[in-house]
Amino acid sequence: MKVFTKELSIRTRGKGTYEISDELAELVAESGVRDGQITVFLRHTSASLILMENADPSARRDLERWFDRLVREDDPDFIHTHEGPDDMPSHIRMVLTRSSEVIPIHSGNLTLGTWQGVFIFEHRRDSHSRKVSVTVMGE
Amino acid sequence: MKVFTKELSIRTRGKGTYEISDELAELVAESGVRDGQITVFLRHTSASLILMENADPSARRDLERWFDRLVREDDPDFIHTHEGPDDMPSHIRMVLTRSSEVIPIHSGNLTLGTWQGVFIFEHRRDSHSRKVSVTVMGE
Amino acid sequence: MKVFTKELSIRTRGKGTYEISDELAELVAESGVRDGQITVFLRHTSASLILMENADPSARRDLERWFDRLVREDDPDFIHTHEGPDDMPSHIRMVLTRSSEVIPIHSGNLTLGTWQGVFIFEHRRDSHSRKVSVTVMGE
Repeated sequence: MKVFTKELSIRTRGKGTYEISDELAELVAESGVRDGQITVFLRHTSASLILMENADPSARRDLERWFDRLVREDDPDFIHTHEGPDDMPSHIRMVLTRSSEVIPIHSGNLTLGTWQGVFIFEHRRDSHSRKVSVTVMGE
Repeated sequence: MKVFTKELSIRTRGKGTYEISDELAELVAESGVRDGQITVFLRHTSASLILMENADPSARRDLERWFDRLVREDDPDFIHTHEGPDDMPSHIRMVLTRSSEVIPIHSGNLTLGTWQGVFIFEHRRDSHSRKVSVTVMGE
Repeated sequence: MKVFTKELSIRTRGKGTYEISDELAELVAESGVRDGQITVFLRHTSASLILMENADPSARRDLERWFDRLVREDDPDFIHTHEGPDDMPSHIRMVLTRSSEVIPIHSGNLTLGTWQGVFIFEHRRDSHSRKVSVTVMGE
């Protein structure tokens, strides 16, 4: 039984989606695990870790625009706005999506579907260094 | 320590919810794991894996109708519509819900609550064969 | 390889957020696991398990108010209302958020970010005893 841990730092440059599937596949190879799972955990409350269609960029553009409309930066009910208009919406968008993903590993491969990519979904306007904790477990 | 892997194929017949709790309980029994966890992962970006109340079908009907209203198929802002009006809404509904679930196994049983069922939430109108990757780990 | 299981009971007192990060850190210490992960699973369909900013209570107040507006108790389309106006909204809020979280453990510590707390997000108006299943696995 193997337990392999690692922390990644991913640079984001404002609101949008940033794919990290290749980085995760490399960690699985490095771990030597053939059957088991990878746990990926984003250590922040103003960005998300999501799965998304990774073939057509227009799908991600539509996703981002839809979230901008659902959680409005100019919502007059928000009190928690110390860090600007994108502060409170970033927390709500995080709760509405996810911060972790657990993906089975079968025969040495992540079992991601053909069009599935793992992305950091950055909700802040500024550039950030996002920390991702990873544990790979299995045989 | 045991590591047990499997892939399931589940047939869906249009938008709606399809329970797979029994299939998962069978895999746990087959694995022989008494204490540990099961990881269930849906390999698609246009359907979700959700937990939902499994006693009263009207709860699932209300859920489906509510999502149809929140993510509208006739949204004029969508660009990614190659595969029809249910294309982009299916990706957004997937991001708003989940694709995986990790459920503890205690004394040989899934620790699902009394009213908790695991469902595939199909977002496309057509029939599909949905692939589910499973890893059971524990002792 | 260690596998450690436990069930927690958490008392909630109406709609709101209840932090359980300290209880989880204690279980990790008790398990003796240095590298691995903790799986936390809420066994209910009318409350959620979420990660949220845990420094400023106004962020949680804004979150709760925003969800109250998104999923309205007076929605005339709901059929599943046996247990009152907060019945169906509680299921939808659960599906929109999460019921489980898997958090890596590195060097004996949960890898939660500086401002990340784990909370039960209670969606019912009444007081409830909420069951949380936990599995800690690793070395």
